[in-house]
This record gives sequence, structure tokens and C-alpha cells, in this order.
Amino acid sequence: MKNLSLLVDLYELTMAQVYFRYKPEARATFDLFVRDLPPGRSYLVAAGLADVLEYLARLRFGAEDIAYLEKLKIFSPAFLRYLRHLRFQGDVWALPEGTVCFAQEPIVRITGSLIEAQLIESFLLNTINLQTMIASKASRVVSACRGHKVYDFSLRRTHGSDAGIKAARSSYLAGFDGTANVLAGKLYGIPVAGTMAHSFVMSFKHELDGFHAYARTFPSRTTLLVDTYDVKKGIENAIKAGLFLKAKGCRLQGIRLDSGNITYLSKLARRMLDQAGLSGVGIIASGNLDEFKIKDLLARDACVDSFGVGTNMGVSIDAPSLDVIYKIAEVTGDDGNFLPTMKLSFAKVTYPGRKQVFRVCDKKGRYLRDVVALEEEKIKGVPLLKQMVKKGKLLCRVPALKTIREFAARDLAGFNEGLRQIYPAYRYPVVISARLKALRENLGNTLIRRQ
Amino acid sequence: MKNLSLLVDLYELTMAQVYFRYKPEARATFDLFVRDLPPGRSYLVAAGLADVLEYLARLRFGAEDIAYLEKLKIFSPAFLRYLRHLRFQGDVWALPEGTVCFAQEPIVRITGSLIEAQLIESFLLNTINLQTMIASKASRVVSACRGHKVYDFSLRRTHGSDAGIKAARSSYLAGFDGTANVLAGKLYGIPVAGTMAHSFVMSFKHELDGFHAYARTFPSRTTLLVDTYDVKKGIENAIKAGLFLKAKGCRLQGIRLDSGNITYLSKLARRMLDQAGLSGVGIIASGNLDEFKIKDLLARDACVDSFGVGTNMGVSIDAPSLDVIYKIAEVTGDDGNFLPTMKLSFAKVTYPGRKQVFRVCDKKGRYLRDVVALEEEKIKGVPLLKQMVKKGKLLCRVPALKTIREFAARDLAGFNEGLRQIYPAYRYPVVISARLKALRENLGNTLIRRQ
Repeated sequence: MKNLSLLVDLYELTMAQVYFRYKPEARATFDLFVRDLPPGRSYLVAAGLADVLEYLARLRFGAEDIAYLEKLKIFSPAFLRYLRHLRFQGDVWALPEGTVCFAQEPIVRITGSLIEAQLIESFLLNTINLQTMIASKASRVVSACRGHKVYDFSLRRTHGSDAGIKAARSSYLAGFDGTANVLAGKLYGIPVAGTMAHSFVMSFKHELDGFHAYARTFPSRTTLLVDTYDVKKGIENAIKAGLFLKAKGCRLQGIRLDSGNITYLSKLARRMLDQAGLSGVGIIASGNLDEFKIKDLLARDACVDSFGVGTNMGVSIDAPSLDVIYKIAEVTGDDGNFLPTMKLSFAKVTYPGRKQVFRVCDKKGRYLRDVVALEEEKIKGVPLLKQMVKKGKLLCRVPALKTIREFAARDLAGFNEGLRQIYPAYRYPVVISARLKALRENLGNTLIRRQ
Repeated sequence: MKNLSLLVDLYELTMAQVYFRYKPEARATFDLFVRDLPPGRSYLVAAGLADVLEYLARLRFGAEDIAYLEKLKIFSPAFLRYLRHLRFQGDVWALPEGTVCFAQEPIVRITGSLIEAQLIESFLLNTINLQTMIASKASRVVSACRGHKVYDFSLRRTHGSDAGIKAARSSYLAGFDGTANVLAGKLYGIPVAGTMAHSFVMSFKHELDGFHAYARTFPSRTTLLVDTYDVKKGIENAIKAGLFLKAKGCRLQGIRLDSGNITYLSKLARRMLDQAGLSGVGIIASGNLDEFKIKDLLARDACVDSFGVGTNMGVSIDAPSLDVIYKIAEVTGDDGNFLPTMKLSFAKVTYPGRKQVFRVCDKKGRYLRDVVALEEEKIKGVPLLKQMVKKGKLLCRVPALKTIREFAARDLAGFNEGLRQIYPAYRYPVVISARLKALRENLGNTLIRRQ
């Protein structure tokens, strides 16, 4: 990661200068959470924490950054000197990546100086929004696949290079089997996969020439795209290439269908392949797929062995942003003690105080409900927010991506299986504790008087 | 830009190895274009070319990249040696950034070795998709603002850091007046702007304390957020701070409304400010705005002077991806001569051959229609695709962002003003030349026989 310390909104810096002047000792706690689930969605899969922790560890304003800020003629020399030496010294509590979570549950909770906690707002929102959004969408796609393998093909339509790489990581975390994105494969050790493009077939005089050239070059890993021209003839040509490989003691890995009526074509292809003695050749489907289309294909008994899912997952097309916010929950008063606070804006009221999320299980370990409560409350349940950073020091190593992926699958399996249904949305109970509700009510009245 | 050469889909590399083995001399032309406009949209604003040109100039696989590819055990040593020394040596023709364009019009046209032209597919699609999508959305927002200033507030919800930076650039290119994103400001010289967060107000015991602290720190650039608690009282407190600044010979720049009924509240705020003698204090509105809401606010005579637009623009919420594709249009045959080619897949047929887009004007320079034709056709109109790179060498400097922004505004002004209406979509005529149509028809028959 390059130095992204200047990836802030200007107001974070101007507010910081006011704090620097008027209350340099003030400390605060902020919650990052999703206000409401997107329509039709039942849960979120928390992701992005690894990048947040790396960013916080590296946060520093370099000489070049300071020179730019100086040029803006907004900031005082004393503040810029302070900024030059700023390091993140706060505490981070967070849901481990892969945790299934819900609206109103803090995903990341920051306690630190008001300045540092405020400065990191935009990066945290940007990072958790993207990766949680993708992991949540991808998790649904994985459920729809009912055990069939599924690969990330989204790079070309994700929003830029960072999103392309993070879509591969987040979808793998949520249960995808691999990605076509080579850089993501290198960076995260994700298995890479791929077939061929229509342009490949078109660059040969005859479709079969292209198929043979590919099969000869990769005798043990050839998947042939059969819909560049007429699909039935494409399958016939794929069978010729498959028999050629079989004669050499190799196996054609698969054929890919990328357009048309996939249910019909996959059944046709399966029959033709089987009749030719190529029952070991798989069929991969792609082309504008999402969890709804995959569910529908499998409900119609489409003969598809694996799926390539691109744009609809990679941009989370039905929910291309989460309603994720970063809100102050407590701040120190004149005496240095923390006081709960909250926002009262129209339809945007938040919950005050330092919070914890407790997950209540039955005797068999199945999840019954979550309780969002004040941290100090004694709630019978597993506290989900773990301390990751203490006074700027990382307390634990970020787990390997594979470990996170296994944890995510285990966590999802702990819920009633209704949660995994594609449609309609299932409402897992998330309860606000009585004390937290009472605090909000009382505080609301106090704050209005204070204004 | 860091080295993004491995930001490819795996199949681009496997296909390249087949080409390397079977047709290392083959050359091809690819078109990058949008198949259909998103629903409700009338035009696109081309953007992203600067990054494409930089990427092509830097394209090289480093030792670390090759080591990773080697580990995959897919590629031959000879191919990896070839890859290690690969540089982009092709030609690039493209629409200059800021050009208003339409479906079926090539935005970028690449001619080069089949290997290099295919390898760059995913990066080109990813880059042009993101930036054209944002510029196109932002251009509509600018039209809706009818001359009022508008700022990019999207960083927190854009898809990752790259998207955040590019959203600032693309929206500025399309006519936005600035961004809150400081890193984008530094990288591209975009004016930076910002106000304050609710958390700022909440971190003070009394709202007015926060307003005063900010006003004292930034006497000439204070915009006060008035909806943290009760808005009317918030405006009253802003007036106190405004009068304080006035007494000091300074001017409160503005107040910001971020929630509630903006039409009603802005009229109330305007009246209160004017009555207090603060008619020079502007009102900025924000909070889930897009071109539809801004048009509606202005139609209701909301007293808003400027707008902050975030998520809905930054993720292009109604069209979070473009139907952008990269298709082979011609490839050399055995004799080394280029032959047109095309895709015949169900509902995805493309146009073959090396194409140019001609824009036909009337005598006053107003645009009448575009013609997509073969490059060699003599069409009365301005050819829009310009050669940017010849045999790997950049032919021109990328213009300054301000220059591109001015060009984009001028180009849009050349169209019938119906094009800029927010709703319903306006259909500017884009014609396919008779020769191109005939070529497609004839080639279709030939290709089917060839299969």
C-alpha cells in the first residue's frame, strides 16, 4: 500500500486544526456501522479490517504531503508541525473479518484522541464499505451455487484497480473458489483461473484451429469457449478437441457458455459431451450472472458445474454502496471523563456510548439473536468486537486469508438456514439493550437543552 | 501509479502463450466501446485515457511478476522470457478525454501485436469503465445544478482508494467545481473544499461553542453544519457566529443543510440569515443528492447556493457499471494482411473492421449526428478518434485537467440542449455507415461457413 495518509476529506484536517487549538487533549470513541441493510438483504459479512490495520500502522504525513497542505494556505505552521509527527496511538476494537453482522452493529470501534479518530474517518468508511459490500454480495452468490464452484471474473468492471483487487479478496473470503485476477492471486495467494476470450476464437481462421492450438498448449488445463459463433457447432468442435486430448491421455477440463439460454444449452452440451464419451468434461457458465440467475439455473436443472461471476458481484449491482457511517459515540468533557453523545438529525439518530455486540447462542451453539449493548453490561452472549490495536500497537497478526475464509463459512453456518435464502430477506433478531435505549432517550432530552 | 502489469485476467496470459507459440507475428485491432447506454441516459463523457496512456508506457513484467507466474506452473520458460522483455509497441487511437460520445462508438482503438493488444484488455476496460461512468454521471449533476457550484463529497463510499481519487478527477473533468478529497487535490490540482462533520458539533458541550471555535480558527472560510440537533436553533447559532465574524470584518462563508426537507429549511435559513443582515452567507445542501433531487430542489426554488454530492455520483448509483466491451475488429491472416472479424454470439454481434467516428455539424458548428464508419471512408464530418500513440511512442502530451474540463464543457455545449435534460433520455442520432453495415452482413455469412 502506498502512502494514503492524504486520502482524507478536507474537513477532517480543518476540524483537526480546531481541535488542536481548542481541545488538544480531548479523546473520543467512534463507531463505524451500517445504518440499514440494503433492501432484500439479510446480513453482512465484515471485511476490510486488514487494510484498516495496515493503514493505521503506516499513517504519517510526509514532507511532500505537508508541503501541499502548506500551499493551500489554510493551516497554521504549528498544526502542520504537529501533523508531521502524528502517529495513530488509539485503540481499535473490531469484528474479525468474515464475521456475519447486521445493521446497527459496530464493525469497527475507534477510541483515541479526537484528532486521530476523526482524521481516519474517510479511509475507514471507504475501505470497510467496499470490502464488506463485496463480501456480503459474494456470500449470497456462494449460497446460490449450492456447492458448485464459483470464480471471480469481475476485474474489468470493478471501480478501478483497488476495487478489482479487493473484489477478488473479498469474494474469496466469502467463499468463492478463485479469481481470474492475476495480481490479486499474487498479492493474496488466491487460486487463479481462466478460460479464453471470444477474440481468441475469432483470431483463428476456423474455430477448431483455435481450440486445437489452445489444447496443444495447455493439454491439462483447457476450457473452450463455445459460443463465439453457432453454439451447437462450437460444442461439436469442442468435442473434437476433447477427443484429441483424450487420445493423448489428457482430459479437456471444460467448455464455457457465455450467452443465450444457458439452461437449454447446458443440457444440450451435457448430452452431446456424454454421448461422445466425454462425461468428465465440465461446463462453466458465465455472462451477467448473479445469485438470482444462478438459483434459477440450478432450479431448472441446468447442467452447469461451475460459474464465473463478474460485474454483478464486483460492483454489488443491487446495492453499490452500503449505508455505512462513522459516528461519534462518546467524548471527554472538561474533566477528562468520557461522556456519551449522539446525533439527533432528522431520521438519522444514532446510539450513544461505548458499545459491544453480544451474540446469544443456544446449547448447540446455534445463534439466536444479537444484543447491541453498552460495553460494561453483563449480557449472556459472546462479545463479537475484539480489541485489535491498543495505544497504536497491533495486538495480533492478521490471519491468513484462508483462515478468514474458513471462519466466515463457519460463522454463516451457525445461523438458521433461512439467513442464506436468496429471497425474501430473513430478519435475524438484533436487539438494542434496555440500558442503551434508556441512555439514548435521556441523552436526547439533555442534548436538546444543551443546544 | 505502481506497477499494475499483473492486473490482467489469467486468460489474457494463457491466450498470449498460445499466440506466442502459434502466431507470434499476428497483429490485430481492438475496439473499446459501450454496447448500450444505461437506461435513461443520453450520452457519455469519455474519461480515463490519461491513465491508459501512462499504463501502456510503463507496461513491463518485473522479475517478481515473472517469479509468481513461474510458480503457477502454467507457462513455458520461453514465453516467460518473452514476457519479461515485452513493451507496448502498438498504436492507440482514442477520443480525447472530455469528448461527449455514445453507444457503439469506439472510445479507444488499439492496433498492435495480437499478444500486446489482448494483454491490456482488462486494465483498459477497468479504467475507461470507471472514469467514463463517473464523468457521465457527474456531467448530468452539473447540468441539473444550472450554474450553481457543486462539489465532490464521494470519497467515503467510492469503491476503494483508486475509485475515490478517480471520482474526484472525473467529476471535476465533467464540470464539478472541486472535491473534498485532499489526495485528489494534490495529485490533480483540483480545488479542495469542505465544511464540518456532525461529530465536530457533538464534540463540544454547546453547538455554539463549536461554531465559535471553528469561526475563530478559520475566520475567512467557515461553513457551519446546522442540522446536528434542531435545525432552526442551529441556524440561530450560525447567525450568532456570523455576526461575530461580521463584527471582526470577516464573513461567514455559509451554512450546510444535510438532512430533512431541504426546500423548506433552505427558505427558512435564507429568510433568517437575510433578516439578520447576513445575506452574503451562502447555503450549501448535501445528503444523498443526485441530479434528480437537485433538479427538483431548484424547481421548487430552494434557496441553495451550492451542492455537495457524494455517493450517488461517486458510485454512479443508477448505473454502477457501463456495458463496456473490448472486441477484436480485425486480425492479420496468413499473408500478414488485416482481415475484418466480428463476434456472432447471441444478441452480442459486433461491427468488424478498423473504424472511425465522424461528427457531422451544421454551418454554425452545432452537432447534427455521428457516423460510425470504416476509417478509410470519406465522410463529411470531423473524425473524433485521434492517434495518441504510434508504435509505442506517445505522440502528444496529456492536456492539463483544466484544459480537458474546458473542452468537455465546450463539447457538450455543441449539442442540442435536449441532450442535457435530466429526464427523459434524448436520442442523438448515431448512424452506422452503409459500408460498415454491408461488411457486417457479408462477413456474418462468411464466418458461419468458416466455423
